[in-house]
Amino acid sequence: MRAAAGSLEQLIEALRCLPGVGPKSAQRMAYHLLQREPARAAELARALDAALKNIVHCRRCNTFCEQEVCERCASSKRDASQLCVVEMPVDLNMMEQTHAYSGFYYVLMGRLSPLDGIGPKELQLERLFERAADGRVTEVIIATNFTNEGEATAHYLAELFHARGLKVTRIARGLPVGGELEFTDAGTIAQALYERRDY
Amino acid sequence: MRAAAGSLEQLIEALRCLPGVGPKSAQRMAYHLLQREPARAAELARALDAALKNIVHCRRCNTFCEQEVCERCASSKRDASQLCVVEMPVDLNMMEQTHAYSGFYYVLMGRLSPLDGIGPKELQLERLFERAADGRVTEVIIATNFTNEGEATAHYLAELFHARGLKVTRIARGLPVGGELEFTDAGTIAQALYERRDY
Repeated sequence: MRAAAGSLEQLIEALRCLPGVGPKSAQRMAYHLLQREPARAAELARALDAALKNIVHCRRCNTFCEQEVCERCASSKRDASQLCVVEMPVDLNMMEQTHAYSGFYYVLMGRLSPLDGIGPKELQLERLFERAADGRVTEVIIATNFTNEGEATAHYLAELFHARGLKVTRIARGLPVGGELEFTDAGTIAQALYERRDY
Repeated sequence: MRAAAGSLEQLIEALRCLPGVGPKSAQRMAYHLLQREPARAAELARALDAALKNIVHCRRCNTFCEQEVCERCASSKRDASQLCVVEMPVDLNMMEQTHAYSGFYYVLMGRLSPLDGIGPKELQLERLFERAADGRVTEVIIATNFTNEGEATAHYLAELFHARGLKVTRIARGLPVGGELEFTDAGTIAQALYERRDY
């Protein structure tokens, strides 16, 4: 299709795969790389090649890693009874930063999004169910985002885990730490009220 | 002390009672009122007088009102078994906007703040305990802010209500509706994890 395009046009087109990069930015990037940073451009090409070759998904938690099983999943210091399901590796990192969780993870690498054609099959959810059925996991903590898609994913997973007889919990909605009612939206206050806890 | 000051100086000084108004703004306001808006300045004086004369605290919920008992507390349509404790009238308004609560309120008109000399006596907390002991309230929902002072107030109230044999709950902390882990602080995620709920 694009056989007639020269190398420059192909590079510009290729740069558009980067998130938020339109035709104009792509053109500017291409000129910049070729004119001013040829060495670093070559480095980028090598890094992309190496990453594509070396980085795989951890066989247990599905996150990016370079071994068959990632360091976190190979650790013997974590609590094998808890499995926390998150959407993306960045969410796993956020959970780790809390220092409040010592169980294992499963990274969906996405969320159910029927409009984008992402269903249970595309997310390979059977891998998650297999992981949770290791006989040691007693609680699945669903930590998908509280967006529409994240909530729908949570609901779908909860139903299927329940059917498998597993205890399923969901991280809480409510006011943020330090939050004041005056500056919080009504939907969040309503949830905080609905999910109120015994003191 | 300020007997020697003229009316203008006294007005400027008086305007500084407004929140966020320093000497310069107060001066600008005074000139503006006297030069350009004398009629509205007179109106303001009257409104202040009338408000100070007519507005009292509701005998039941302690919010501002012009009758002995405010309209909300006089309503027979609300659930008398729940009493929600908030810091300020603005918080009561936020709770009402959720349309998720139909019980009664108690407005502390502040929070415990020992550094500012505000203790249980200054908040007249015995009025709250009296209100909660009407024999119909079975649950006290504490909806003070999640600031340090709001939390300390919640803790203090919870202890005293427990001692009186009342069920005490606290609105939830967690991620806001629509919230994503990636853009949430670690403290809030840790709380959302700690306060996770059965799905």
